Amino acid sequence: MAPSESPCPVNATAELVGGKWTLLVIRDLAAGPGRFCELERSLAGISPRTLSLRLRALESGGIVERTTHPEMPPRVEYGLTDKGRALLPLIEDMRRYGREWLCPEEREETDAPERAVLV
Amino acid sequence: MAPSESPCPVNATAELVGGKWTLLVIRDLAAGPGRFCELERSLAGISPRTLSLRLRALESGGIVERTTHPEMPPRVEYGLTDKGRALLPLIEDMRRYGREWLCPEEREETDAPERAVLV
Repeated sequence: MAPSESPCPVNATAELVGGKWTLLVIRDLAAGPGRFCELERSLAGISPRTLSLRLRALESGGIVERTTHPEMPPRVEYGLTDKGRALLPLIEDMRRYGREWLCPEEREETDAPERAVLV
Repeated sequence: MAPSESPCPVNATAELVGGKWTLLVIRDLAAGPGRFCELERSLAGISPRTLSLRLRALESGGIVERTTHPEMPPRVEYGLTDKGRALLPLIEDMRRYGREWLCPEEREETDAPERAVLV
């Protein structure tokens, strides 16, 4: 690809995290691997089809890895890869921004500037 | 709104920056206010209709402000509000992530770990 055509990194990351559910799946896997039904519960409102499509897209993007535990019945878990874990600081920033500017009622007791309550 | 129903801050921020163009408009206004035609040029590929809708949504969300300069013909400029500027560190993180994990050819000469080239 010619240098002038190389994708802008902000653009590429925006496409990656653009889907609302994508970030929420990553957030929920931050604590450790989880099963499909656990994600379905924590992401209240997601349809099984959407969750399945999101997980498959995240797998093919190298963000999530799927592990099958050889038990009877087999147990499948989804977890973050290094590339997925590297998104966590970004999600923390989003949480901070949301608390300060979008959901003032969820603000923690911090030294956040007073202007936040104007939102 | 009952506490259990208050929107998750990550969710709210994800909805805000979910649209690819939204972030790119903010990125382009980071350097200072710009006119519609300047944004149209820097966001190569955006349709005038999409840009107009994005700007209107960003305005009503308090991210962008529209200033009309009393000249003949009137000159309209779009600029970031405080709430919009507060998104810039998030966009910087996205750029960093994109450089390291998604667009390795755009990586700066840094001490970024070798694994980035695997992507």
